[in-house]
Amino acid sequence: MRSSYYGDKPTLPSRIGFEAAGSIEAVGPGVDPALIGRQVSTMGGFSQGEFGVLGEEAIVPVSTVAEYPANLSPSQGASIWIAYLTAWGALIHYARVKTGDFVLISAASSGVGLAAIQIVKDAGAVAIAATRTSEKRQELLALGADYVIATKEEDLPARLREMSGGEGARVMFDSVGGPYVEKLAEAASPGATIFLYGGLSGQPTVYPLMAGLAKAINLRGYTTNEVRGKQSVLEEGQRYLRQRFQDGRFVPKIAKTFPLEQSADAYRFLESNTQVGKVVITA
Amino acid sequence: MRSSYYGDKPTLPSRIGFEAAGSIEAVGPGVDPALIGRQVSTMGGFSQGEFGVLGEEAIVPVSTVAEYPANLSPSQGASIWIAYLTAWGALIHYARVKTGDFVLISAASSGVGLAAIQIVKDAGAVAIAATRTSEKRQELLALGADYVIATKEEDLPARLREMSGGEGARVMFDSVGGPYVEKLAEAASPGATIFLYGGLSGQPTVYPLMAGLAKAINLRGYTTNEVRGKQSVLEEGQRYLRQRFQDGRFVPKIAKTFPLEQSADAYRFLESNTQVGKVVITA
Repeated sequence: MRSSYYGDKPTLPSRIGFEAAGSIEAVGPGVDPALIGRQVSTMGGFSQGEFGVLGEEAIVPVSTVAEYPANLSPSQGASIWIAYLTAWGALIHYARVKTGDFVLISAASSGVGLAAIQIVKDAGAVAIAATRTSEKRQELLALGADYVIATKEEDLPARLREMSGGEGARVMFDSVGGPYVEKLAEAASPGATIFLYGGLSGQPTVYPLMAGLAKAINLRGYTTNEVRGKQSVLEEGQRYLRQRFQDGRFVPKIAKTFPLEQSADAYRFLESNTQVGKVVITA
Repeated sequence: MRSSYYGDKPTLPSRIGFEAAGSIEAVGPGVDPALIGRQVSTMGGFSQGEFGVLGEEAIVPVSTVAEYPANLSPSQGASIWIAYLTAWGALIHYARVKTGDFVLISAASSGVGLAAIQIVKDAGAVAIAATRTSEKRQELLALGADYVIATKEEDLPARLREMSGGEGARVMFDSVGGPYVEKLAEAASPGATIFLYGGLSGQPTVYPLMAGLAKAINLRGYTTNEVRGKQSVLEEGQRYLRQRFQDGRFVPKIAKTFPLEQSADAYRFLESNTQVGKVVITA
């Protein structure tokens, strides 16, 4: 939003931020007053320019908040819905990841990437984390990844073939796009689906025609709107996630917290790409 | 094959050709001799260099031939399996095209394109034929297309929105690829699948990121190997097609036939792109 990366450009002055946790202080007309006092966090699905949440107070549409499990801290609560619903929608709701599947997760140290690792492991599948350098290898393994591939240092298709007994990955969950997708296609098993949920590379993603035809590869755009857009799907995702946060199977990972007055530092840290997990601003 | 377009390069001298009809004269060891005398045609799935069929006699693996309906001429029989199985696999077996669907068919005057039009109509869906110029419009309408879009003369997304009441097409069946796919994405309905079964444009097919994410567009490589590779699927496709050829619902369209000694002319005619339907060489 700050960098005009999204189609949704701010009209200055503008608020910013999708994710926040807090206690409901007031409700608008037609909204159940019993919500007052509840601890909730946001699920996105609104315009940051209109409803940005960075600050001590924020106003958001009631349909975009949900209570988070009581055993989570507010920082953790603020971190869960977008990241975990994004990963759940692609991996469980659509791809039905199950025991024996090999799943490649790119940008694995991001909030969504770590959520994906936990979801893949919980489903009994093999979580292969892709990250640029080996710097974050140990931390990603400690956080549950079965394998880590440092894409700038290792040959992704060769390593993936090796770890999957030649089979390749059936599901790939990628926010990078660009020329990298050709490598993913090389490492894909027949009939694989590559979920493309972002374009971090900033480069065009060319459909890998030869591998794509030979292996019937699905290259599929994906956003969390697909989950949020259907109430029954959203509720299924929330139910699935609440159970796993409550019994401790899933633990949201906070990389670092910053006080509100150091928000600029928080964004700089985020852009340094040295973090593993979510960056939280506390007010 | 002649132009080294395929990965499969010929070792000269080489035979050529995937599709042929004829009567079985002899069988190899282990093959049922009861097949002798049967009228069959080929389904592809072999190397042209090894088993090319253009000529008065050809040797092919027994698993790659099938009897064609007796009410078809040998020229028609030679034209059916690859074209119709290709279209059936994508449109019926995978996409489950049904009443009310809008289906865009590119390169609509090709053998596969015409098969696709017949299959889409038979399923009760709306067949939208895309072709470069309006030259073939009348013939495509006469052959069953509900609408024809001349892509060099008309704005494909605008026309498709108009004819589908703003909805766009749920299924797209494209052998062209390249920059054209961006137009297809613009004209796709949410959750649409674009089957890419060739790369006629010769240009890279860039995944249309913005429309692709917003509408969850699935860009999916596809070849007839997916049908041929599984016996039960192949048999289902053959059964479906035989019924419809026998009762006259489907009629293979021959653009022109050439005698064997004019084979070079036949290939020139094919490359002129003026034909509607299959080009057949008779021996």
